[in-house]
Amino acid sequence: MNFTQQCLSLRYNYERIEALDQTLLPHQEVWIDVTEPATMIEAIQKLRVRGAPLIGVAAGLCLGMYAHRKNQTVAQISEVAALLRNSRPTAVNLMNAIDHLLAHLEIHGARELFFAAEKIYQDDVASCEAMANLGHSFIQDGDGVLTHCNTGGLATVGIGTALGVIRRSFEMGKKIHVYVDETRPLYQGGRLTAWELGKLGIPFTLICDNMAASLMRSGKVKSVFVGADRICRNRDVANKIGTYSVAVNAHFHEIPFYVVAPHTTFDPGCASGEQIPIEQRHAGEVVGTNLYSSSKVWNPAFDVTPGKLIRSIVTDRDLL
Amino acid sequence: MNFTQQCLSLRYNYERIEALDQTLLPHQEVWIDVTEPATMIEAIQKLRVRGAPLIGVAAGLCLGMYAHRKNQTVAQISEVAALLRNSRPTAVNLMNAIDHLLAHLEIHGARELFFAAEKIYQDDVASCEAMANLGHSFIQDGDGVLTHCNTGGLATVGIGTALGVIRRSFEMGKKIHVYVDETRPLYQGGRLTAWELGKLGIPFTLICDNMAASLMRSGKVKSVFVGADRICRNRDVANKIGTYSVAVNAHFHEIPFYVVAPHTTFDPGCASGEQIPIEQRHAGEVVGTNLYSSSKVWNPAFDVTPGKLIRSIVTDRDLL
Repeated sequence: MNFTQQCLSLRYNYERIEALDQTLLPHQEVWIDVTEPATMIEAIQKLRVRGAPLIGVAAGLCLGMYAHRKNQTVAQISEVAALLRNSRPTAVNLMNAIDHLLAHLEIHGARELFFAAEKIYQDDVASCEAMANLGHSFIQDGDGVLTHCNTGGLATVGIGTALGVIRRSFEMGKKIHVYVDETRPLYQGGRLTAWELGKLGIPFTLICDNMAASLMRSGKVKSVFVGADRICRNRDVANKIGTYSVAVNAHFHEIPFYVVAPHTTFDPGCASGEQIPIEQRHAGEVVGTNLYSSSKVWNPAFDVTPGKLIRSIVTDRDLL
Repeated sequence: MNFTQQCLSLRYNYERIEALDQTLLPHQEVWIDVTEPATMIEAIQKLRVRGAPLIGVAAGLCLGMYAHRKNQTVAQISEVAALLRNSRPTAVNLMNAIDHLLAHLEIHGARELFFAAEKIYQDDVASCEAMANLGHSFIQDGDGVLTHCNTGGLATVGIGTALGVIRRSFEMGKKIHVYVDETRPLYQGGRLTAWELGKLGIPFTLICDNMAASLMRSGKVKSVFVGADRICRNRDVANKIGTYSVAVNAHFHEIPFYVVAPHTTFDPGCASGEQIPIEQRHAGEVVGTNLYSSSKVWNPAFDVTPGKLIRSIVTDRDLL
């Protein structure tokens, strides 16, 4: 099948949207059909489609295609929009993308909705480029750089946010080494970031999350780059669980900690981190098949890093 | 078969030593014969027998039994002692136990060696009791207590070190809640500590290591208790990888951080943490079957926590 657009994580034409099932990486590269809103919602909830910017783009395309394909009423489109918007609670890019399309729907009606969604896709590609170009100056030749979770081509439809900055630095010829937190419980670092870096030929070392502190103490980490799922007015940042621990450790070791995220990750309605809803996920993600199965488990998918621990937030527009 | 002594992790009579294979917990409880030095060494290296105090006791009994059973020469016993002593590099209890028996061998010869080893066993039981009785005053009724790795009946031949303090507090009627770091890469928290707490009926919640910081920020953690594999003259402590990250986070959140270890964990020959040999283990422990298998991996089994981050070291003799 021919696709109009294709990136590492998503591809579509005017009939169909497909996503790389990220739960099967790194061992299997399986593309799944996520054209139907119900399928897209399941894919987002199960983290087959994940990464704050990607979720926004994918849900937007899904809504746009639903509106075109079926010639639905505005009420029906709005209902599907609400379902997509609620598929995960923390990353605000999803809400921003859907709200943008709903505003478009109100003004222009359903017919142009898919093209508005395509614009979100194109904006994300451009936004990744802008962040990479703005952020790479924080990485020097010879640096060791630590990252958490996955913020690359799998988390966006461009070259990524934090990992895009790292990739751009490498492409410019800086000799860098990336330290990748495996990112429990779902191993987005060890499964996805490692896979991306391997494909790109960027030298990296995988560590368990609890090793980052010791690695920082050894002097090998010159800076930390992470993404974001929501940024508040006071610069508090919600991101993948474990980010806050990295930020505290970076602070203690006097290592600069950078957040890289498009401006669509900002939530002007959110004054501070306490107001961000943190998704709790099920115990099975932690316990798996190895651990003591009768355990009560606390499994928040995100944590909040206070703005004072962040050296700079690199966006597609400016530094904050 | 009848055993002279039996605890959660080890049992023996005068012909045979058996250990609970801790790599198979929590799903299978399989006792393995570790009477032969070669088998004991393999069991220690593969972490079937683990926990700094337990390793010292088990290797000591193995050496003692070897000396009795075979009527070996002092040279042969010394050779086996050296092999046992080198089976793992970081926990000093092993070296201390073997050195103690070698000193005994030099003075009294081989015949009493097993009884000297039994004394190490009995001393560990008594030492755990002493630490529990000394340490429980740091835990108040209603406290949430965080622990890392496994320091209970599986890590000693008594009620444990850090987990012994927690258990004693519970037995005294204090309403406590234990937060258990799963302890990557080998999940000693999620497999062993969770299993022990479940058996004891002590309320607990399992978390991924990277969630500890966020949990501390929430106010639920009143104190942290961990064990030790080696303690230096300047109070630097080597313990399971991830301990240092917990200590930095406890420091940042102004939560007292306690180390609990028998005096045999002290290494007076070690001035500071930089001198402690840190065992590097193979990549497969981290990568497993899920992660990107071409990854270069950094997998230190231990890290060093500087003394200044430790509120108190609870030993069987006093507080340091």
